[in-house]
Amino acid sequence: MNQEYIKPDPWSIIEEGFDPSLVKSSESLFSIGNGAMGQRANFEEDYSGDTFQGSYIAGVYYPDKTRVGWWKNGYPEYFAKVLNAPNWIGIKVEINGENLDLSTCKEVRNFRRELNMKEGWYRRSFEASLQNGTEIKVASTRMLLLDMDEVGVIRYEVTALNQDASIVFTPYLDGGITNEDSNWDDKFWEILSVFEHNESAFIRSQTMKTEFDVCTFMRSQVYVDDVKTKATYSSEEKAKCIRANYSLQLSKGQTATLEKFGGYTVSLQHAPEELVDAAKSAMDKAVSVGFDELKSQQAEAWNKIWEMADITIEGDVKAQQGIRFNIFQLNQTYLGKDARLNIGPKGFTGEKYGGSTYWDTEAYCIPFYMATKDPQVARNLLKYRYHHLEKAIDNAKLLGFSNGAALYPMVTMNGEECHNEWEITFEEIHRNGAISFAIYNYVRYTRDYDYIPEMGLEVLIGIARFWHQRASFSEAKQKYMILGVTGPNEYENNVNNNFYTNYIAAWCIRYAEEQLQTVEEAYPKDYERIAAKTGITAEEVTNWMKVADGMYYPYSEKHQVYLQQDGFLDKELVTVSELGKENRPINQKWSWDRILRSPYIKQADTLQGFYFFEDEFSQEELERHFDFYEPFTVHESSLSPCVHSIIAAKLGKMEQAYTFYLRTSRLDLDDYNKEVEEGLHITSMAGTWMSIVEGFGGMRVRDGKLHFEPKIPNQWDSYSFKINFRDRILKVNVSAEDTKFTLESGEPLEIVVNGRSQMIN
Amino acid sequence: MNQEYIKPDPWSIIEEGFDPSLVKSSESLFSIGNGAMGQRANFEEDYSGDTFQGSYIAGVYYPDKTRVGWWKNGYPEYFAKVLNAPNWIGIKVEINGENLDLSTCKEVRNFRRELNMKEGWYRRSFEASLQNGTEIKVASTRMLLLDMDEVGVIRYEVTALNQDASIVFTPYLDGGITNEDSNWDDKFWEILSVFEHNESAFIRSQTMKTEFDVCTFMRSQVYVDDVKTKATYSSEEKAKCIRANYSLQLSKGQTATLEKFGGYTVSLQHAPEELVDAAKSAMDKAVSVGFDELKSQQAEAWNKIWEMADITIEGDVKAQQGIRFNIFQLNQTYLGKDARLNIGPKGFTGEKYGGSTYWDTEAYCIPFYMATKDPQVARNLLKYRYHHLEKAIDNAKLLGFSNGAALYPMVTMNGEECHNEWEITFEEIHRNGAISFAIYNYVRYTRDYDYIPEMGLEVLIGIARFWHQRASFSEAKQKYMILGVTGPNEYENNVNNNFYTNYIAAWCIRYAEEQLQTVEEAYPKDYERIAAKTGITAEEVTNWMKVADGMYYPYSEKHQVYLQQDGFLDKELVTVSELGKENRPINQKWSWDRILRSPYIKQADTLQGFYFFEDEFSQEELERHFDFYEPFTVHESSLSPCVHSIIAAKLGKMEQAYTFYLRTSRLDLDDYNKEVEEGLHITSMAGTWMSIVEGFGGMRVRDGKLHFEPKIPNQWDSYSFKINFRDRILKVNVSAEDTKFTLESGEPLEIVVNGRSQMIN
Repeated sequence: MNQEYIKPDPWSIIEEGFDPSLVKSSESLFSIGNGAMGQRANFEEDYSGDTFQGSYIAGVYYPDKTRVGWWKNGYPEYFAKVLNAPNWIGIKVEINGENLDLSTCKEVRNFRRELNMKEGWYRRSFEASLQNGTEIKVASTRMLLLDMDEVGVIRYEVTALNQDASIVFTPYLDGGITNEDSNWDDKFWEILSVFEHNESAFIRSQTMKTEFDVCTFMRSQVYVDDVKTKATYSSEEKAKCIRANYSLQLSKGQTATLEKFGGYTVSLQHAPEELVDAAKSAMDKAVSVGFDELKSQQAEAWNKIWEMADITIEGDVKAQQGIRFNIFQLNQTYLGKDARLNIGPKGFTGEKYGGSTYWDTEAYCIPFYMATKDPQVARNLLKYRYHHLEKAIDNAKLLGFSNGAALYPMVTMNGEECHNEWEITFEEIHRNGAISFAIYNYVRYTRDYDYIPEMGLEVLIGIARFWHQRASFSEAKQKYMILGVTGPNEYENNVNNNFYTNYIAAWCIRYAEEQLQTVEEAYPKDYERIAAKTGITAEEVTNWMKVADGMYYPYSEKHQVYLQQDGFLDKELVTVSELGKENRPINQKWSWDRILRSPYIKQADTLQGFYFFEDEFSQEELERHFDFYEPFTVHESSLSPCVHSIIAAKLGKMEQAYTFYLRTSRLDLDDYNKEVEEGLHITSMAGTWMSIVEGFGGMRVRDGKLHFEPKIPNQWDSYSFKINFRDRILKVNVSAEDTKFTLESGEPLEIVVNGRSQMIN
Repeated sequence: MNQEYIKPDPWSIIEEGFDPSLVKSSESLFSIGNGAMGQRANFEEDYSGDTFQGSYIAGVYYPDKTRVGWWKNGYPEYFAKVLNAPNWIGIKVEINGENLDLSTCKEVRNFRRELNMKEGWYRRSFEASLQNGTEIKVASTRMLLLDMDEVGVIRYEVTALNQDASIVFTPYLDGGITNEDSNWDDKFWEILSVFEHNESAFIRSQTMKTEFDVCTFMRSQVYVDDVKTKATYSSEEKAKCIRANYSLQLSKGQTATLEKFGGYTVSLQHAPEELVDAAKSAMDKAVSVGFDELKSQQAEAWNKIWEMADITIEGDVKAQQGIRFNIFQLNQTYLGKDARLNIGPKGFTGEKYGGSTYWDTEAYCIPFYMATKDPQVARNLLKYRYHHLEKAIDNAKLLGFSNGAALYPMVTMNGEECHNEWEITFEEIHRNGAISFAIYNYVRYTRDYDYIPEMGLEVLIGIARFWHQRASFSEAKQKYMILGVTGPNEYENNVNNNFYTNYIAAWCIRYAEEQLQTVEEAYPKDYERIAAKTGITAEEVTNWMKVADGMYYPYSEKHQVYLQQDGFLDKELVTVSELGKENRPINQKWSWDRILRSPYIKQADTLQGFYFFEDEFSQEELERHFDFYEPFTVHESSLSPCVHSIIAAKLGKMEQAYTFYLRTSRLDLDDYNKEVEEGLHITSMAGTWMSIVEGFGGMRVRDGKLHFEPKIPNQWDSYSFKINFRDRILKVNVSAEDTKFTLESGEPLEIVVNGRSQMIN
């Protein structure tokens, strides 16, 4: 954890001073993205110090052959990974014959990074003394355009400070990139062609196996005092790289400016043979608009996003910076335009977790996108899973299930399972529950019931079938059980009767049964189509319901709590606070078996169930369970603090709620887990948003109405957020004194505040 | 399973007819070894068909960098593997310009392999029609000498059948070998030098990292009708291979004979700089004795082994062949001369399991070696673990234990853990129990109590300390528990309170406590030394005993059986016989999670405890547990049938006992598990021996006396075995009518037969 690293600022992320040991962390924190592509904040010029190079294109992945120590039946053949893509940002800079490299300079001064979240640009500036005595000032501003999402632009400026300087700029494209994360050091990209045309350069390349075609492109303009310099191009035979060379002469005090327009056109959006033309016209358009105007348009585009998604916090600049960073990164990662895309746990900021889809999307991200975007965005996230239903059925078949039972993969890119660790891949099956829950949550929020007959019901049936088959009957206890699972708390593996899993399984069955009834009555034609397609019968549903109604939930009479799983009380129940600090974090200090037999909880497990199904339990029950489980929770998952913050707020434990809030919102900025250099925790950022809106704001949807129970941490003067709910934009301002609700657009709205109904006009 | 593949014969393993699809299986079955080295039955001449090349040197291993999908804290850096060693058996054979290769011949006739177990040689013969029309007859006889265990010899004979033939023999050494089993395709061997000297050839090579030095050597003699041919030598620069070339001319009907003397001298036995001289003198000696005399000496040496270890079975040649094959292979693998060596599960017949040491040695192999060899042999197996005690303490430290607690590795070569699969490496800790049990078993059998103060007690203390720390106290049940383990049944992972583990843990503590008392009284000087070294105190032992006395054992009142683990009765208890055949073997047909949540048992688990601690349970309890667990047992481990055979025999279930016996004794010969091509199941072969001696013979040691309860399967006329017990050789002959005990050497012996004491003079 490093609390002094990022300067507090309400709208920007700022780093001051050059510390080579923080380069990789900053590359993560200052990442930029526009939903279609994203990149780590790598330097444009050469850097021979420690760095983690990364540029990623949404939806472009490679099936990396599975690597395991001991193969288990059922493992998939590969792990689909979003790939490090060809580099278009690179600019070699030679000054008086010396290659600019911050790692070999004599001195670096006034180094500063700023990620301007309000306007969506990243700027880096510094002064350097080179070994040859030349002193220069450099400033580089970079954006990935929201409005033209195939294009990024860089303005790179070099000023000669102490003497005249000959400068050679060599902007380049490099297709010879590798992945940090690779199982077998396979070659992931094949270069098809490398060429220059009309002052622009192109690399056509293709991912191996998946055959995604990508055209990486660049065009540069170099000025000194508005005088343009012309380039010569070079690329070697069998090249992976193409370079443009600009030689120019600066007098002391003069500034040379290079503007580079680059990016990718991709076969997901264009026919392969049209990629180069599409690249040319994207560049033409961007160049004709020009850097300054593009920067204004970018600010305007981000302004539209903030208009709806911003949360303000008065009186606590670190909290303000934290929440905006979370909202900014979520919008950089996913904008909901394309139902083939989803939200990887690290977004475009790193390679861990393969850029693939986890249950995080359904459990954590959907509420954020529902409330801050058009409902189409959340619907696209649901459709993503609908389109994968056949593959989820195939996946279940591989594991011995039948009759259309569907098990959604733990990790996926295209619907196929990618994960290969038996206790997770085969056993962390609660993920299936989150997918049904997201459908429920979406319909509850949007009132878009049509989604169910259209697509959702088939998913609900497949999932209910899975749970029905996966449960087994215990003769000894005369109950249905789910044996051999891993719950949300991955610090328990292969346990029996995980409360959360059993509960959501029974819920999924009941919810599917209810929707079958509703669709049969209200959408008879759809019902007929779905019944014919799935072969569902009343008798089958009756059998499902036996499992739902006869489900076993481990319970302690003594503690009056549901047990996380069978045998939980047999553990040595030493709380986290009694555990010596030298043992933390246990995932770094302890061997795996020791973690497993300990009572320590990685992230909300039983409490995740209480969070999802809050209305099915009393406040007393919630408090009892929170008080029982939170003391054993080590919060070593980024997804843990947010749920605890929401529940703590509901229980009026505001100090705890605030602590959890800070931990979730500044997890990456303050690098709590000492791993930010690997990338950011994107999906948990949606949990941060929830911890304000659902936690402090106490927002819920019940009986079709928005409910609020606003609270405010002592540390804050006030906070505000906006909600897009059923064609209304509602603004909520909470201060210690009162809460104001303002209807910014749409028809009058009835809301319930602290249990009392009121109309907002 | 292929029951027609190997011809029944009491003393030989015979294959007739050439079937390329069986080459790899036969390479395993016809393997030869002499304790110091061993090799698969690869052809001497080139073979371009499917083959698995393997020559292995005892104790020469390589630390192959660990490969896992998902790293867990505590995993070792490498897996130590016995390596495929340089090939010294190769002989290229060119006949009238055509390279002899059974895969490319026009026809192969009268192909026959024989492994003569009585005399310890392997012979292969065939006739072949070459593409060039030449017809030849080939016979090759091969031995690895027991008396000169660095040397092997081959006599390779070629007869020209239908025409004159020019023959070129090219015997060679090849250091450019690879392992089939390699994590990263690392280079395992470095070649130091390749040279010829005085008609002999040498390759000096060294294993990477571990730096075992090996000199591989050969000398050949080629005759036609007693006329010697001289060789020319060749090896390329930077060579991995050296060849001798013998050109000769055969008239039709004549036979050319090549005798090749080869093998390894190893830095385990010699100083590196003396390896070549040692190789020369080993060859000189072998060559001077000559092939025929070496063959007689080999028969004599094997005769000495059989004299003591043979088991005869009358009236059932397949059973006879099976048991001799098992005894033969055990003696080929381990002869007990060197306490640095141990018994790999595949011996020298394959690479699976890395040639390393498992708990198989203590649980299955020690009784065989105790009864058929000098007690020094079993003592060497115990010393192996004593020498690894410090590393077992280090291993436990890595997993969070302290104060000299020792956890012996799941798999090891030099005492360090090699295994990397958390549910086994960290959790299959019952292995520690077998190591204490082996000490008890050894002292019980041999009366060599001195071993305990000398070495054993320190091991017992380290293990008792481990169990004391590993157990945890359940407040809920007010009992000590062992959570998160894998029992002998590896089809259950990470379970709580595995009965076998809990039971042997408590037993280890009690046994250590008793030996501490005995040593303190009877060996006060040793006690003082050990107490000083280990820091053991009476108070510590008192704390141990709380765990042993307060241990929890899951029990079903309804079934009156100890439960394999907590929650066993919650499973769907469908017996194996009710399970459709299409589901078997479940380890090939089912995904891992399905296996785990099923009730199916891979090998004796609860029953392994009843086997070890038989005297602590009544016959009724044993029967109840056998009847409860056996129906759920799929016997998919090679170590399963033997224990079940022994218990079934004790319970008088002779048909079952016989079926299990056949399955264990002919597991490889009949290839029950369709995997014999990977190598033989060496350690379970000791279980086969036990299933006759302890099963049918009912032999036990109780109160210092040998007990017998002889039974005989209906299928047999009679059987006999010999026992080396406390300086006596006792021969036991069992027929349907009676049992005869003959004292072949030593003082009169009191034995107990069916509960009645008798003196054998």
